[in-house]
Amino acid sequence: MAPQPKHLSGDKAAINEFLDQFDVFLLDCDGVLWSGDNLFPGTVETLELLRSKGKQVVFVTNNSTKSRADYQKKLTSMGIPSSVDEIFASAYSSAIYISRILKVPPPRNKVYVLGESGIETELKSEGIEFIGGTDPSYRRDITPEDYKGIADGSLLDDNVGIVLAGLDFHVNYLKLSHAYHYLARGAKFLATNTDSTLPSNHTFFPGAGSISIPLINMTGQQPTALGKPSQAMMDSIEGKFQFDRKRTCMVGDRLDTDIRFGIEGKLGGTLAVLTGVSKKEEWDAEGAPVIPAFYVEKLSDLMG
Amino acid sequence: MAPQPKHLSGDKAAINEFLDQFDVFLLDCDGVLWSGDNLFPGTVETLELLRSKGKQVVFVTNNSTKSRADYQKKLTSMGIPSSVDEIFASAYSSAIYISRILKVPPPRNKVYVLGESGIETELKSEGIEFIGGTDPSYRRDITPEDYKGIADGSLLDDNVGIVLAGLDFHVNYLKLSHAYHYLARGAKFLATNTDSTLPSNHTFFPGAGSISIPLINMTGQQPTALGKPSQAMMDSIEGKFQFDRKRTCMVGDRLDTDIRFGIEGKLGGTLAVLTGVSKKEEWDAEGAPVIPAFYVEKLSDLMG
Repeated sequence: MAPQPKHLSGDKAAINEFLDQFDVFLLDCDGVLWSGDNLFPGTVETLELLRSKGKQVVFVTNNSTKSRADYQKKLTSMGIPSSVDEIFASAYSSAIYISRILKVPPPRNKVYVLGESGIETELKSEGIEFIGGTDPSYRRDITPEDYKGIADGSLLDDNVGIVLAGLDFHVNYLKLSHAYHYLARGAKFLATNTDSTLPSNHTFFPGAGSISIPLINMTGQQPTALGKPSQAMMDSIEGKFQFDRKRTCMVGDRLDTDIRFGIEGKLGGTLAVLTGVSKKEEWDAEGAPVIPAFYVEKLSDLMG
Repeated sequence: MAPQPKHLSGDKAAINEFLDQFDVFLLDCDGVLWSGDNLFPGTVETLELLRSKGKQVVFVTNNSTKSRADYQKKLTSMGIPSSVDEIFASAYSSAIYISRILKVPPPRNKVYVLGESGIETELKSEGIEFIGGTDPSYRRDITPEDYKGIADGSLLDDNVGIVLAGLDFHVNYLKLSHAYHYLARGAKFLATNTDSTLPSNHTFFPGAGSISIPLINMTGQQPTALGKPSQAMMDSIEGKFQFDRKRTCMVGDRLDTDIRFGIEGKLGGTLAVLTGVSKKEEWDAEGAPVIPAFYVEKLSDLMG
């Protein structure tokens, strides 16, 4: 039988030993700190405890529609103190990856964006040129002139060398057609994240993965994903925070994204909370593919 | 080595023997009769030859945006004489399947449509109730009220028991959200066809498969597809024409859809033409998964 996670809730000695092992905590947000609009009791106090012990806290989210500044506003609105530098969202992760890791040489380094303003803000912050995104000229029906100009290339920008697909609430046939043709002409294919669904209103709506999947299906290409559990995101975080992976713990509610992200990133530890998607039964199951190192019923159990 | 297809072009005796074997010819259109807007020379004469020999001709297309009447107009505009009864398109195939094979009992038998007017016309012709489709009230951005009403069900129609996804040039986030929630509530999942791309302007644009794939990705469910190579389409055709499969030949340019459709339907024969997508090298290859029984360079080679 695979080693089972250590249960920390109610065990003060075990909690202290756990906290002493780590300098950095990467925290997933929805399902860990809150659910939808409901902040979990004790979230603020637990974060205060971590900070009071000198721990670095990083909020890691696959949300691709918000810039770090947008996301900080959300944290503030939930009553959680934070600084922009503590926030790592997949739009920012994508911008960092493009500018510091991918480094496509000019002139063919412009990005065609499927997504919202959060992506645009982060691309701008890294000095990356882009088209598409929230540009209203793409928010309309396709016309015979579009078919012709996309097919013969006259309506395409020759300098586009990257397609970045995030969650786009304004996705349409015209935008997908442009993205497909840039990919068919050899552009690199990136996705902020590939979550098929987006939790909202206590249920699910289409996620960023719903925007990239038609392109995957049409081209047969898989994008490099910049959200959890992709290690491209871990590399981006490390590029910024320069942490010691062995002294870092990933905290999350989803085994297949958060906990897998931490394990594949060879972090010193992973902590599952039971206030979100994954249940204890998932790692109890015979042959469970992902098993956290530690678990608590809820994050605030870390207060002992 | 697998048996190779018999080459008919230029071999008058072989052509006559071939024609004598069949009473019914199922003809794919784009890539066989024409390419884009260009009618191939000899198409009209070849169809005349088949008809003069008493053969039943059926135009079989995965095009889901057109009703049979729309498609007949297209054939006429290309200079090809035809009757509506000779046309089998995936929108019609879907309507036939819903009304004559699926037979969901009322009241939960309404269809939520992702698609264009061709689908609506064919559903109406079979007396099937539907919502969505070209209804302009779905052609807009999603609002906070939509999230709430979709999540709590107050904006959903309790009588929807089927989601039918075809090619929708007006696909958007709101429509995908509705479709997903009907599926999550147990609606049956149908797709007119699942072609990832649509040939147009000598290149490709997003096909009907680009509309259903986000829903497949979100729900983990596969739709019953009503286009080639799905045998649900063959069953629909047979339900209407009552042909003898052994005396029927499928003619097409794509091995993975047309020829596979004929082979899996246990038709008497399959004829590949080289004026479209698939090349001779595909069936020459070691371990080729689909091999036609016959091939010609072009359809008009059947004139000998």
